[in-house]
Amino acid sequence: MSVIPESHVDLLERPLFGHLGTLRADGTVQVNPVWFSWDGRLLWFTTEKRRFKYRNITKNPQATLSVNDPEQPYRYLEVRGTVEEIVDDSSTDGFFALAARYGMSFERPIADAPYRVLLGLRPQHATHQ
Amino acid sequence: MSVIPESHVDLLERPLFGHLGTLRADGTVQVNPVWFSWDGRLLWFTTEKRRFKYRNITKNPQATLSVNDPEQPYRYLEVRGTVEEIVDDSSTDGFFALAARYGMSFERPIADAPYRVLLGLRPQHATHQ
Repeated sequence: MSVIPESHVDLLERPLFGHLGTLRADGTVQVNPVWFSWDGRLLWFTTEKRRFKYRNITKNPQATLSVNDPEQPYRYLEVRGTVEEIVDDSSTDGFFALAARYGMSFERPIADAPYRVLLGLRPQHATHQ
Repeated sequence: MSVIPESHVDLLERPLFGHLGTLRADGTVQVNPVWFSWDGRLLWFTTEKRRFKYRNITKNPQATLSVNDPEQPYRYLEVRGTVEEIVDDSSTDGFFALAARYGMSFERPIADAPYRVLLGLRPQHATHQ
């Protein structure tokens, strides 16, 4: 059973921007706006191996997503979990699928294709309001 | 001189929702939507002493704000810093000033008034896009 409350799963199903918190090597918190998708088991993010976000995750796989409802900003969901899958995306198929979810199109190939990965985060705790 | 880039200071001046990352006692990251205001020196948040956010900050004062532009979601600002001031707000004057900034009104007194505090975060690093 998922830890995501039924009442708030729409916040993961809609193409909203999330804010992903990861832990930096110096022990401080990093938070960045992110695209994501939810397959009912894992939350998926796209990044590339030269980013701090990726380096943070490979050192400490715990990460936390915060997303609120633009139409009702007090309605929000926080998901804490662990990145359990790091999938090569040098084909950029994952990147383009996620871009399409957010209504974005880019010309192929994209410059950082060789470094592209997908991160799959398994939710362990959720808080909501 | 502020670490906030001139090009992105509007993201702090407008009443946008931010997402604040703090570190929990178990070493995992917490991220919550927040109101904030910016006085040119400190970022101010309202919270209360019974919240995890407050407990996190009193154990580890490092915190990180992420805010993006709703009209141009790829335009964002991340501010990492340290909570240097924790100010009693049991008068709730700070709470009501911040609520007004976000177009919200509440009836006085609010139930958690005795526990209300303001957190003042000094920016130390900023990243933006």
